[in-house]
Amino acid sequence: MKLVTFRSGSGTQVGIWDKTGVQPLACSDMVELIERDTLPDPVGAPVPLDQVELLSPIPRPRQDVICLGINYQSHADETGKTFTDGEAVPIFFSKRVNEAVAPGGWIDSHVGFVKELDYEAELAVIIGRAARQVPPEDAAEYIFGYTILNDVSARKIQTRHKQWYFGKSLDGFTPMGPCIVTADEIAFPPALPIRSYVNGELRQESNTSLLLTDIAHIISLLSQGMTLLPGTILSTGTPSGVGMGFDPPRYMHPGDVVECEIEGIGRLRNRVR
Amino acid sequence: MKLVTFRSGSGTQVGIWDKTGVQPLACSDMVELIERDTLPDPVGAPVPLDQVELLSPIPRPRQDVICLGINYQSHADETGKTFTDGEAVPIFFSKRVNEAVAPGGWIDSHVGFVKELDYEAELAVIIGRAARQVPPEDAAEYIFGYTILNDVSARKIQTRHKQWYFGKSLDGFTPMGPCIVTADEIAFPPALPIRSYVNGELRQESNTSLLLTDIAHIISLLSQGMTLLPGTILSTGTPSGVGMGFDPPRYMHPGDVVECEIEGIGRLRNRVR
Repeated sequence: MKLVTFRSGSGTQVGIWDKTGVQPLACSDMVELIERDTLPDPVGAPVPLDQVELLSPIPRPRQDVICLGINYQSHADETGKTFTDGEAVPIFFSKRVNEAVAPGGWIDSHVGFVKELDYEAELAVIIGRAARQVPPEDAAEYIFGYTILNDVSARKIQTRHKQWYFGKSLDGFTPMGPCIVTADEIAFPPALPIRSYVNGELRQESNTSLLLTDIAHIISLLSQGMTLLPGTILSTGTPSGVGMGFDPPRYMHPGDVVECEIEGIGRLRNRVR
Repeated sequence: MKLVTFRSGSGTQVGIWDKTGVQPLACSDMVELIERDTLPDPVGAPVPLDQVELLSPIPRPRQDVICLGINYQSHADETGKTFTDGEAVPIFFSKRVNEAVAPGGWIDSHVGFVKELDYEAELAVIIGRAARQVPPEDAAEYIFGYTILNDVSARKIQTRHKQWYFGKSLDGFTPMGPCIVTADEIAFPPALPIRSYVNGELRQESNTSLLLTDIAHIISLLSQGMTLLPGTILSTGTPSGVGMGFDPPRYMHPGDVVECEIEGIGRLRNRVR
């Protein structure tokens, strides 16, 4: 099932998305839906696709997105970072999201403040129930679903301020969507082709089976000390092919179109302004 | 004015705290109060202090706390970090808070998972209205008030995972309170003695006038790219005297009592379990 948050003549609602339209559901927002044990009832008739404006499935996350850094070997190689300590040690940072950018929405280039604007296609995991001290073998039970997240990054700010938080958290830096695919539709662990395109040119191409720290271990490790609440968004890192990985680098500029694609979820298309 | 969130026979409320008791106010929670232009009306009679259980003034922040790292020279010296680039470059990271620890509440030592549990007394700034591209000279107008935050840290986790986020964000790692002192009561910029004690022994002693990046510049810089929403918590960093600064280090252990004090705000006392 593909779940979306959308706007139509009836305001902002959540619903089930298919090829013909969106069936609205009786609940106030996506996090409320996630917190329920069962799917809310349908309410009203399906809305035809041409009357639907998709928003990000979770437009205003209740907490910052938890992100993984350097979680594909190919991206470790292109950045020259090897963050291992005998074994792979996951890097966690967070990304503040006042409002997630909708499918088709604008990435803000912050002209005059940001110089090296980069994209990162990522598989994002949505937690479905409170996860506390979960062993890896049980982690899948805590997943509500999956979406696509573009971890837009201001590279100079990211490095200048030592911790990555500020360079990751600017307004308009979190396109997310187009939908949440519920966990029952994707075999665990997800092995999905992931790609990004800038102005139609393929830039990143990998598979979500290649995470250095896999989803089961991400959830297990974090939950040893942090209770992951329903609606928590875990963005699992990006493969090689980001702008900073090219020589010379190929950053984004106003007018560029960036698409992040994960097979089985969809394609998240955004323009830079 | 000192504002608190508290529990009494009438449930959880916000109110004005003075020496005799707490006057409840007509609003649902502290962030709703902060978002208003005017103080809510009083509702009911003052509650005597002995019938009041203080909670953290913002028990469940809507977004992660934005923290400053290495923002007093004395702490830079004790950690051996010099994060300057010609000029001081502030380090921003975030701290996830599922539920802030109340005054008198427990700091969780996470026995078996955390080995080097440390304290950090900090002045926290509460943003009062949406701040976007604010010049330093106007920053004070965006401040709702101030509180005390103990930026509890798991040092080994903080460094092992490269980015500090995980080691700062465990459950029970954010004691905050006892109250919010409104900005009109503290001359700007705040020049307040700040101290911490472990089991009654003075560990940290400094003054909030000694921030390397001052509050006006913190707000101004962040707001160049991030809209700081009402209720945003900015924790301004800690002076020297934390556990890791001693040789050998003096970390916290179950049974310890930690107090963080800022003159004009109060004292935040917590025990470790």
